[in-house]
Amino acid sequence: MNRSSSPLDNIRIVCVNTLYGGNIGSICRAMKNCGLNHLTLVNPDPDLDRIELRKMALKALPVYENRREVATLDEAVADCGAVAVTSGLDGFHREQAKTPREWAPELLKIADTGSPVALVFGAEDKGLCNDALKRGTHWIRIPSDPEYSSLNLSQAVLICAHELYVAHGSFQQQKERSRPASHAFRERMFTTWAETCLSTGFCKDDKLNHMMMGIRRILSRGAYTENDVKIMLGLARQCDWAAKNNLQPAPPETPQG
Amino acid sequence: MNRSSSPLDNIRIVCVNTLYGGNIGSICRAMKNCGLNHLTLVNPDPDLDRIELRKMALKALPVYENRREVATLDEAVADCGAVAVTSGLDGFHREQAKTPREWAPELLKIADTGSPVALVFGAEDKGLCNDALKRGTHWIRIPSDPEYSSLNLSQAVLICAHELYVAHGSFQQQKERSRPASHAFRERMFTTWAETCLSTGFCKDDKLNHMMMGIRRILSRGAYTENDVKIMLGLARQCDWAAKNNLQPAPPETPQG
Repeated sequence: MNRSSSPLDNIRIVCVNTLYGGNIGSICRAMKNCGLNHLTLVNPDPDLDRIELRKMALKALPVYENRREVATLDEAVADCGAVAVTSGLDGFHREQAKTPREWAPELLKIADTGSPVALVFGAEDKGLCNDALKRGTHWIRIPSDPEYSSLNLSQAVLICAHELYVAHGSFQQQKERSRPASHAFRERMFTTWAETCLSTGFCKDDKLNHMMMGIRRILSRGAYTENDVKIMLGLARQCDWAAKNNLQPAPPETPQG
Repeated sequence: MNRSSSPLDNIRIVCVNTLYGGNIGSICRAMKNCGLNHLTLVNPDPDLDRIELRKMALKALPVYENRREVATLDEAVADCGAVAVTSGLDGFHREQAKTPREWAPELLKIADTGSPVALVFGAEDKGLCNDALKRGTHWIRIPSDPEYSSLNLSQAVLICAHELYVAHGSFQQQKERSRPASHAFRERMFTTWAETCLSTGFCKDDKLNHMMMGIRRILSRGAYTENDVKIMLGLARQCDWAAKNNLQPAPPETPQG
């Protein structure tokens, strides 16, 4: 996909009055993990620890190097079609807040129009003040345990960025390479295990049906692939062969799908 | 709710060969944010930076103080009914991996039986080795941008812990306190705005219906509460009054729901 046309390219992380360089570094890395590149710092602490910042950013340092720095939140979000503000505190209209997961599709839809969308985070000690919160078009409250609800700044950014990344749907899980085993192939496996139950003396003929119910149940959990059935069929065959041949090693044989 | 009966109490975070105290501290805080309390460290670096650890853990330090420390992964998870292992790399059966969101309900279900469930994370530099991964009953792959997929250790723990916390469903969004406005109340608001459009000269009689379509559309976006309608009805009334009274301040009047 053409990265420049991704709505993620129109998402901007805005950090207000940030105090710690380590957090900025962690934010850069979290942003890169989630396909985000645009960082704006509003009036950061002039004594940000830049060594700590580099240590935490690692290969995501270009996000910091390409940051914008501005004096006010209004400047940071002047061109934004949506301004999503985050707060962990209750009160001040916060009953309208939704979780990052709930807002993600709408924010992506706005970003997809080409309009920049800002996600705004406050300082480590105080969060966003009411004067900043009132500028929000969308209010975000990250789910957390009421007994210890305050998230580290970079962890809060990660949760929001991760939800946008997941909602964007560009992540592709690695595909299972082996096809699901067919019914007929699975039945060959069960038939062989039934023979093996008898030949090894694991159970007698009159208990076989009952035992095979259990074995079928166990070997049917989850979706079995051809590779799975090949392994379990081969194992059954080998046990059967060994039982009938006094446990001498069998000649090599590859089960066929 | 009785915390001791929560399945979250049976979730154990297991960190193998961790190198940095700051990460352990951040992990403790992330765990507390998500209602988790049980941390096991497998063979951590003996020179963990404990100052950094305290700085990042803040009030979640008790999670570290109550940790278990053991020499091997087998010891850490011996009593666990499920061992969920995390890896960002491809290959070695990783096509069976699912996201934390996909696994969360199943892991909670196992934890709910009373059986401990381990989530296992590798060292900062190398992740989990294949010898550790093969002990997994559940394989976790956190969605991240293939161009920079490696997450900071504490960020990886947070994503997994957050998904378990959200799936557990104990988080309660703050409720909207104002009821949805009734149809009749909304219509009073629109009638007042129509009068105001005329009295202020905003539009002429022949354009009013068309203009009110727009105003209705704008004021019907989202679910309007009684408080919302009170504000917009009051504003319309005041404008109407000011237009008819040469913009002198109006006597105080509270709109009635």
